Amino acid sequence: MSLLESREPSVASRPQSTPAHRAGPLQPTADARCALRPVGRSRITGGFWGEWRRINAEVCVPQGPALLEAAGNLHNLRLAAGQAEGEYRGVHPFLDTDVYKWLEAAAWQAADTDAAPELDAMISLIAAAQQPDGYLNSWFQVVKGGERYRDLRWGHELYCAGHLIQAGIALHRTTGRAELLAIARRFADQIDSTFGPGNAVDGVCGHPEVETALVELYRETGEPRYLSLARYFVDRRGYGLLAAKDRRAAEAGPAYCQDHVPVREATEVAGHAVRQLYLLAGVADVAAEADDSELRAAAERLWAEMVARKTYVTGGLGAHHDEEDFGDPYELPNERAYCETCAAVASVQWSWRMALMTGQAKYSDLVERTLYNAVLAGVSLDGERWLYVNPLQVRDGYRHPDGDHGVRRVAWFRCACCPPNVMRLLASLPHYFASADDCGLQLHQYATGRFGDESAQGAFAVRVVTDYPWNGRISIVVDECPAKATPWTLSLRIPFWCNGFRLVIEGEPTEAVPEDGWLRLRRAWRPGDALELELSLEPRLAVADPRVDSVRGCVAIERGPLVYCVEGVDHPGGGLDDLLFDPAPGLTEKHDPTLLGGVTVLHGSGRRRGTTALDGARGGGDGAASWWPYRSLGRVIRAKARADAGIAAAEQFELTAIPYYAWANREDGPMRVWLPTS
Amino acid sequence: MSLLESREPSVASRPQSTPAHRAGPLQPTADARCALRPVGRSRITGGFWGEWRRINAEVCVPQGPALLEAAGNLHNLRLAAGQAEGEYRGVHPFLDTDVYKWLEAAAWQAADTDAAPELDAMISLIAAAQQPDGYLNSWFQVVKGGERYRDLRWGHELYCAGHLIQAGIALHRTTGRAELLAIARRFADQIDSTFGPGNAVDGVCGHPEVETALVELYRETGEPRYLSLARYFVDRRGYGLLAAKDRRAAEAGPAYCQDHVPVREATEVAGHAVRQLYLLAGVADVAAEADDSELRAAAERLWAEMVARKTYVTGGLGAHHDEEDFGDPYELPNERAYCETCAAVASVQWSWRMALMTGQAKYSDLVERTLYNAVLAGVSLDGERWLYVNPLQVRDGYRHPDGDHGVRRVAWFRCACCPPNVMRLLASLPHYFASADDCGLQLHQYATGRFGDESAQGAFAVRVVTDYPWNGRISIVVDECPAKATPWTLSLRIPFWCNGFRLVIEGEPTEAVPEDGWLRLRRAWRPGDALELELSLEPRLAVADPRVDSVRGCVAIERGPLVYCVEGVDHPGGGLDDLLFDPAPGLTEKHDPTLLGGVTVLHGSGRRRGTTALDGARGGGDGAASWWPYRSLGRVIRAKARADAGIAAAEQFELTAIPYYAWANREDGPMRVWLPTS
Repeated sequence: MSLLESREPSVASRPQSTPAHRAGPLQPTADARCALRPVGRSRITGGFWGEWRRINAEVCVPQGPALLEAAGNLHNLRLAAGQAEGEYRGVHPFLDTDVYKWLEAAAWQAADTDAAPELDAMISLIAAAQQPDGYLNSWFQVVKGGERYRDLRWGHELYCAGHLIQAGIALHRTTGRAELLAIARRFADQIDSTFGPGNAVDGVCGHPEVETALVELYRETGEPRYLSLARYFVDRRGYGLLAAKDRRAAEAGPAYCQDHVPVREATEVAGHAVRQLYLLAGVADVAAEADDSELRAAAERLWAEMVARKTYVTGGLGAHHDEEDFGDPYELPNERAYCETCAAVASVQWSWRMALMTGQAKYSDLVERTLYNAVLAGVSLDGERWLYVNPLQVRDGYRHPDGDHGVRRVAWFRCACCPPNVMRLLASLPHYFASADDCGLQLHQYATGRFGDESAQGAFAVRVVTDYPWNGRISIVVDECPAKATPWTLSLRIPFWCNGFRLVIEGEPTEAVPEDGWLRLRRAWRPGDALELELSLEPRLAVADPRVDSVRGCVAIERGPLVYCVEGVDHPGGGLDDLLFDPAPGLTEKHDPTLLGGVTVLHGSGRRRGTTALDGARGGGDGAASWWPYRSLGRVIRAKARADAGIAAAEQFELTAIPYYAWANREDGPMRVWLPTS
Repeated sequence: MSLLESREPSVASRPQSTPAHRAGPLQPTADARCALRPVGRSRITGGFWGEWRRINAEVCVPQGPALLEAAGNLHNLRLAAGQAEGEYRGVHPFLDTDVYKWLEAAAWQAADTDAAPELDAMISLIAAAQQPDGYLNSWFQVVKGGERYRDLRWGHELYCAGHLIQAGIALHRTTGRAELLAIARRFADQIDSTFGPGNAVDGVCGHPEVETALVELYRETGEPRYLSLARYFVDRRGYGLLAAKDRRAAEAGPAYCQDHVPVREATEVAGHAVRQLYLLAGVADVAAEADDSELRAAAERLWAEMVARKTYVTGGLGAHHDEEDFGDPYELPNERAYCETCAAVASVQWSWRMALMTGQAKYSDLVERTLYNAVLAGVSLDGERWLYVNPLQVRDGYRHPDGDHGVRRVAWFRCACCPPNVMRLLASLPHYFASADDCGLQLHQYATGRFGDESAQGAFAVRVVTDYPWNGRISIVVDECPAKATPWTLSLRIPFWCNGFRLVIEGEPTEAVPEDGWLRLRRAWRPGDALELELSLEPRLAVADPRVDSVRGCVAIERGPLVYCVEGVDHPGGGLDDLLFDPAPGLTEKHDPTLLGGVTVLHGSGRRRGTTALDGARGGGDGAASWWPYRSLGRVIRAKARADAGIAAAEQFELTAIPYYAWANREDGPMRVWLPTS
């Protein structure tokens, strides 16, 4: 295949400092200003995440090609390649990315298993669809007659390129195969010769994503032009280059695609959540590789703002269906939480970059919360159905409208960005769990597997066995370390929610105090040394910042990293809108291996609110009417006193809470994360 | 103008029972099954609504023609008439309705003053734009090459016809001029010969409105075909005739335009709020004229459901920006309340039809609340700027995006449905304030003016003088009644929120008990008889049905029919997100004639929530972190105890509440209707 061979990337130009082995999606150069570096030899072999990765490998990823065929994505590429006839299918200009993200998932999967059989054919198709100068987008080639870069606001051309680049890198890193990377690089070169100073186009893409991809392409190839181009795209944004040229753009405004203020000056996240998050992943990458402290400060500032004011307790992001954007500060409605699954994936990607750059545990705290709740809720327990939006509440009267943004798990979406995004994250998941620095190894997340790396001092690795998140006990054995008995540091993240932990080293209970979220254990570790960390998973009740109006007077149940919810199916006979939770009796827990793939269920005390007591006939002289849902305060206080006096123990019942990620796997029905207490 | 003369409607065919004098927008035939009938000689001459009608007459309506010229609506009609060249302006197929609604407003205004000078030219233009067979829609004639009725889902052609019909009727009723009515009738005949059994098209319009207009056209002309056609449109809806033919339709679903279930079977209001409300106004009209008890029951059921579960305390309707639709039951978010101004106008229209059909006071209770709050908030105090959406909360961090749906008063909208809708309502307002039946006269709303009618027994009229809603005293003098001293009933609505009232008849304090919201005073009233009704306007604190999650732990301040709000401009130095209201000290009131055109201001006790006490450093061992906005319940209870103990009297400050309708007239900034109490 001479065409592809001629596109072999110049590996000779890779910086010498890049590790020889292939890691995950993120591989900073040795020159990058990062406190920690990802480790290249991590594997998850069992436990909670092992099972999820099995489902991904055996169900999700294998189903991809047939779904992409049925949805028309491959047909569209064939049209671009001149290999098919007919109408373009679908109405989005970014349908190629579903293919690219699936390819990226299949590529990461190839690190564990044989590569998917459809992979070769898909790469050949993409190669055939690519135009001679490297440009590649089936929508513009087929539907728009080859017009290019004229609608940067909505065209998604660079966004598509970004996903192609990431897929090419993934395949190159896991298998050494260079064809897809060569295709991606030809597209990147076409973009590099088109955009930026001295070139024809001064502009940025309406949907960020290419920035982080270009930095990774720089890391993979050593070609500094890609880093420069990424920096250009980061810094040219915010100057109204994507200003309104059509009605929809005018209504969404420049903040929709983060074009309202340069990121260096921004004080809050804004606009379309996925766009904002991908952009900030790229900002973190550029900051690290270019050692740009101003950009780094912007990323730290925006992360803190987002988490403090615009993040759901699940880690979900995006409060508005309209424009898929962040809401105002503390505007976090539960039933209309958008919390796009893609936003959760992007949040993990960005926070992980921040964790590596800064070494701070809080970023991995958010990664953990987001993975267990906001990401996992997006895929069904059998791996066959998906949610695009992830609300924290479904009311009794919810009608489940059709469409991508309804709340019902479906096999695929018209805009199918989320499923392959989850696939690529799960396929590359071990990458996000551990890191290294010159002093040793850091475990950010806990899963059964082997986590390690090589460094200048030699190889470090630990084996972990755990039933986390069901059980807090995490057994760690040093598997490999430099032969010379020099001290090194094994750092264990103590999640901020953890009310207590117990540490045993070589059978000896050991006192240790975490610093800034890290338990830093420095000693002359030797192979076979054993630790046991036990994190308290005592159930907790969370309340929100009082400015979060939507959950005033409510609590959320949590256990370990898991946020819980109640579902209608567990509470027959009345829905959930009338439910009250009584925190006083506390919660009991029970692991049920037969329920929902095996979950720890929490039970508490609930009752149903009697609304009858609050109803009154019309004209009672105190401002109430039976048909009007608002009452005078005095009337309610009097009615409540009567109602409280009348509560018999018999009216209380056992309330059942399940992990939020497992909801909507039995039947469509009401659900609540936040429970009113009175 | 021979063309127009030839279109003179057949007034000969009017039912004999129609009163000879001209009333307002709604004039049921004598055969209609209505408990009450509107009165035809009502005038508002002063007071609160007198001032608003003056602003409408002197500012809002006179500005219309220039705004319609600037926005291109008149240009588009000229294109259709072959009187201009150039591009069609705007992207909506319903831009003609802005002209029609303005004409309707100008026509109602013509009952009080000389007709607007631009009226003749506009009617001539519309006549010239009409096609020979009666069809009329500038979008389809100019942009779509004359294609008709092929896109009923989005085309709005019958919706446009409905507004044209209403404008024609208004002008005919107030001035006797028949040209515009003739144009409208030709369009109605074209529709009647196109739609329905035996005709080419079996379908309904995506945006209801023509139903109510056709019933009124039947009332005005006596032509029963129009009633039949209205009934056909009501009954053919709900069978998926408007099913998805494009992506947007598929995503919005059939409920968006009430095509998911026939109205006779519907159990809840759903979909696009304005569409639903216009439809139900038409349903009430058909039910009354056709004496259709099943339709009447549907209208009563849907009104009760809507009010109990989907109505904001302001009377506003529509909880979602996305698709402009009703939310789920009890889903009433404040900062994203859509509460389109048009929905408030439509709600008044529907509820008034229900009030007349049933005689029940609750419908006029809602009319009152909606007029004073949801409708009036849509127009600035100077009559020059408008709101399309009317949220009940603006957060401190709100960024005021551009576009129709941002929260900033603007002179006009790209989709300018709301301003002329408010204009036509204010211009016809006296129509909604009183009614009559065979026993006498009913006052539904209180305003300075003269309200009366003729009946078979003779003429009844009363004069009212009042400073309501600032003062609860309403002075009523019988001005005209049949000479024979037979008893008749003067009925006064006692608003359901009213905690007490005082009645004095001819100087004598009189005991009377309202029945179902009506104080029915039957005696042999004679001209000059004087009553004084004094409604208690003591400020009230409202709480919501506990299922309204968005306002748990909050109260809303009300006084008389007015809902109050607090604005940032009155509370400098910290915004409103941190505000707490203490109900215990009560509220004081003060009328300020210089503020906001003269309003009664309420003062209460507030303080700012100290969030510092709730913040904690990371890793405090109790599940809190300074960067995470959620806390453990135990920690909050302990912090609250400390905080409560530390509240000094000095931290309390005077909180200022103003009527909600007057908000955003001083500066853009935060606002809240619902105030947290702890």
